[in-house]
Amino acid sequence: MEQNVFFLPHEGLKLAELAEFLGAELVNSDHAGVVVRSVAPISRARAGDVCYILSRRSRDELATCEASAVICDKALADLVPQRIPVILSSNPHAAFAMAGGLFYPAALRPVAFSGESEIAPSAVIDPSAKLEKGVIVEPMAVIGAHAEIGEGTRIGAHSIIGPNVKIGRDCSIAAGASILCALLGNGVIIHNGARIGQDGFGYAPGPRGMIKIVQIGRVIIQDNVEIGANTTIDRGAMDDTVIGEGTKIDNQVQIGHNVQIGRHCAIVAQVGIAGSAKIGNGVQIGGQVGIKGHVTIGDGVQIAAQSGIMTDLAAGGQYGGTPARPLNDYLRDVAQMMSKTRVRGKKPGGEQND
Amino acid sequence: MEQNVFFLPHEGLKLAELAEFLGAELVNSDHAGVVVRSVAPISRARAGDVCYILSRRSRDELATCEASAVICDKALADLVPQRIPVILSSNPHAAFAMAGGLFYPAALRPVAFSGESEIAPSAVIDPSAKLEKGVIVEPMAVIGAHAEIGEGTRIGAHSIIGPNVKIGRDCSIAAGASILCALLGNGVIIHNGARIGQDGFGYAPGPRGMIKIVQIGRVIIQDNVEIGANTTIDRGAMDDTVIGEGTKIDNQVQIGHNVQIGRHCAIVAQVGIAGSAKIGNGVQIGGQVGIKGHVTIGDGVQIAAQSGIMTDLAAGGQYGGTPARPLNDYLRDVAQMMSKTRVRGKKPGGEQND
Amino acid sequence: MEQNVFFLPHEGLKLAELAEFLGAELVNSDHAGVVVRSVAPISRARAGDVCYILSRRSRDELATCEASAVICDKALADLVPQRIPVILSSNPHAAFAMAGGLFYPAALRPVAFSGESEIAPSAVIDPSAKLEKGVIVEPMAVIGAHAEIGEGTRIGAHSIIGPNVKIGRDCSIAAGASILCALLGNGVIIHNGARIGQDGFGYAPGPRGMIKIVQIGRVIIQDNVEIGANTTIDRGAMDDTVIGEGTKIDNQVQIGHNVQIGRHCAIVAQVGIAGSAKIGNGVQIGGQVGIKGHVTIGDGVQIAAQSGIMTDLAAGGQYGGTPARPLNDYLRDVAQMMSKTRVRGKKPGGEQND
Repeated sequence: MEQNVFFLPHEGLKLAELAEFLGAELVNSDHAGVVVRSVAPISRARAGDVCYILSRRSRDELATCEASAVICDKALADLVPQRIPVILSSNPHAAFAMAGGLFYPAALRPVAFSGESEIAPSAVIDPSAKLEKGVIVEPMAVIGAHAEIGEGTRIGAHSIIGPNVKIGRDCSIAAGASILCALLGNGVIIHNGARIGQDGFGYAPGPRGMIKIVQIGRVIIQDNVEIGANTTIDRGAMDDTVIGEGTKIDNQVQIGHNVQIGRHCAIVAQVGIAGSAKIGNGVQIGGQVGIKGHVTIGDGVQIAAQSGIMTDLAAGGQYGGTPARPLNDYLRDVAQMMSKTRVRGKKPGGEQND
Repeated sequence: MEQNVFFLPHEGLKLAELAEFLGAELVNSDHAGVVVRSVAPISRARAGDVCYILSRRSRDELATCEASAVICDKALADLVPQRIPVILSSNPHAAFAMAGGLFYPAALRPVAFSGESEIAPSAVIDPSAKLEKGVIVEPMAVIGAHAEIGEGTRIGAHSIIGPNVKIGRDCSIAAGASILCALLGNGVIIHNGARIGQDGFGYAPGPRGMIKIVQIGRVIIQDNVEIGANTTIDRGAMDDTVIGEGTKIDNQVQIGHNVQIGRHCAIVAQVGIAGSAKIGNGVQIGGQVGIKGHVTIGDGVQIAAQSGIMTDLAAGGQYGGTPARPLNDYLRDVAQMMSKTRVRGKKPGGEQND
Repeated sequence: MEQNVFFLPHEGLKLAELAEFLGAELVNSDHAGVVVRSVAPISRARAGDVCYILSRRSRDELATCEASAVICDKALADLVPQRIPVILSSNPHAAFAMAGGLFYPAALRPVAFSGESEIAPSAVIDPSAKLEKGVIVEPMAVIGAHAEIGEGTRIGAHSIIGPNVKIGRDCSIAAGASILCALLGNGVIIHNGARIGQDGFGYAPGPRGMIKIVQIGRVIIQDNVEIGANTTIDRGAMDDTVIGEGTKIDNQVQIGHNVQIGRHCAIVAQVGIAGSAKIGNGVQIGGQVGIKGHVTIGDGVQIAAQSGIMTDLAAGGQYGGTPARPLNDYLRDVAQMMSKTRVRGKKPGGEQND
């Protein structure tokens, strides 16, 4: 990528320093002093860039690669031309991600509007709110009564922190997010426009229309959770809505009241999880999936994009389709439907569709 | 639930008072003076809590229940142990909802940031706007020229009320919502980040790209409508977009221009309703449903989650699937597909998928 | 539509002026001085209104139509009663759209809160930001360091323009939108609550949870793009996310990192496009469609609503369903499924579903 003004390259690190930070091995110590400043995909890496490879298919790209270092597994090291320094890692993808964070620390959190250690004069902070030292509050943010915010946390412009909300340390609340009736751990990232802690959707049919069921639970967000832009997480009805440690949630996801999500899950954009569903640990959910209320999804389950989950899913399985079924069955159904399409296309006199 | 700081329990009501408020019967007048403060599910109800039951399946939970009152239908009253006061109601769910609202009036509306009867100094209100007495405007809200806002309405922090917008009495506009080109009745609730009254999506293909079709209609929102967080409702093109009285709309719903929705509908999260669709009264629409433009959906229709509605639907029916068909047919198709999956799973030598 | 206060009719144009503006022919020059002020559908057009027709099916409506002019193709002109002035256009829909924009110029952009040529005193603008003349900044907007904004652009209330962002001329950023790490061309419209340029969703699995992959690309938005309310567009990971000239994107669309969208596409509400997908020019995508990451969609492709795109699609084709297949095949499958439903409904003793 042509150099951009939003994220300037690092001032420079020596490969020996990088390898040490990664807990990885620099193969040839002659390269210890080579200076690197950025990350790039192998296809575009130039002098100063670090890239990585995961398979032998990168052989051709390596031949012309101008990177200043390649991160790879020991088994692939022989692919790399002599001229390119090699850093060995048993998990090159993770090492590459760590390198990126080292070069671009500003990109590890939502974009900041103000400098360090500053509370914008235009912010409206209730006098009873408690802010630890090093809290940054950007312009126009509103912080309610008795809210508590931990050291190193940044509250973005136009964001709303409700009364009594507690936010841990080193969190980032991006611009225009609202956090109500919630307790957040440390290292939590909430992106722009996310809405946390509003009412769940609950009504009882009455004689003159629906009667609102008050939603008096909370949202509990554990350490190192990341929540995408314009995602909505309702607070619990009489229980809490819980997002487990390290779970990553993409943009425009909807999470209903009382939903409990385990640790280290990845939930892709536009997923909808209905009320009181229970999601285990390490679950991966593709984009636009819908999950019925009150179902239980076991640890380690993987769900293909756009699936509809109507029943409990056993731990460790892969599922797809609506209704969701074991992934291989779903893929077989998909293949069958596609082959029917192709057959039709070939029929003499058949309609030409594309 | 452990007691939380966001919604403190009521200072206490006598059961006689509660029963009178509910228009329900306290079976044993000896219990008239028992004090209650909160609502809870039967599984966790303790002293001071009111719970409710809907079927005989609650028998076991009642045996150990510590609630200070149970709301139930006459036919279930014999299930309740002598020690627990009984309130008889022909609609226990509705009565329980009403009790919740009585105990937690603050939870009937979006969370407030400021006290009563206050206009935040940081709000920007056009001098020509008319605010009735008792209007609360929270920090940073912006109210445009000639807007009119009725008594008892609360305008949330960072919300935007466009020029000429009219909002009735006792409404709540939550933080960060925007209301443009709209007329709202009384008792309307708009949650955080909802976007009301922006352009519909209309273009005519022209010689040098798409030409914007101006959207000069309005959004009409009738009394007691509730609209969820980050939901978007476009204004009409040359007609109005209308949401009927008492209709409840969940988070992240998209409603296109000229859509007309009847009274007392319930529309679950992430539904999309394309332009000029007409939805009758009392319609219930499950999450992630898509409704084609210009279709008509009859009164009382119920639509299963994730369905795709491509045609008109007759009043009173239940439908599901894509394309939507009568619900029993859809469920039979689902069952058939799932049974095929199970058969495959049992085949000797078949792949193990979960 | 009854006249509304949000968009007042034009003070009046003569038909000769209108025809000239449209590059169209007024059939009878006796009508040159007829004054028109607004647009309306043929069914409701009255004196002062311009309407249009596209087919002979409008014959009955024309008989009672009170419009002051009808725009139509030459082949349909004989349908129009003598009393109604006729404007001939080879593209009546486009001409009608142009007429609407001429009558209601204020409706061509998001609703304005302030008058012309004004920077609201409550806006927070970094001193290093460069605003050309004629830039309007509405209340509470925040503009970061080194941002550049072109002449005639309007920055809405509560919107956020990040550091170093560049916005061209005659753009409109509506209230509550956030624009980060992005370069915008001229004539771009961003609606309320849209989120542009936050992190993409990228993680590498590590020994103690997912490691964030820094997202250091940009969002490039070319001239005359329109982006709907609460839509989210992530910035690139190591490449850029690109939206091509003239492309129109509806509300609540999610566009992942590195996605490249061509020119003059139309993308309807709630579509999700996963990372690194490539969309050609002139592509039309129906509502709630999901597009898998890394697929390529050819120029001019049309995709039916709710489809799931798992593979590359050849240019010029029409597709539908999940998995997406040629549209005619999909429609045949739909018809087959619906006919099965009808047969069941007719079976003697069969269940009555609607």
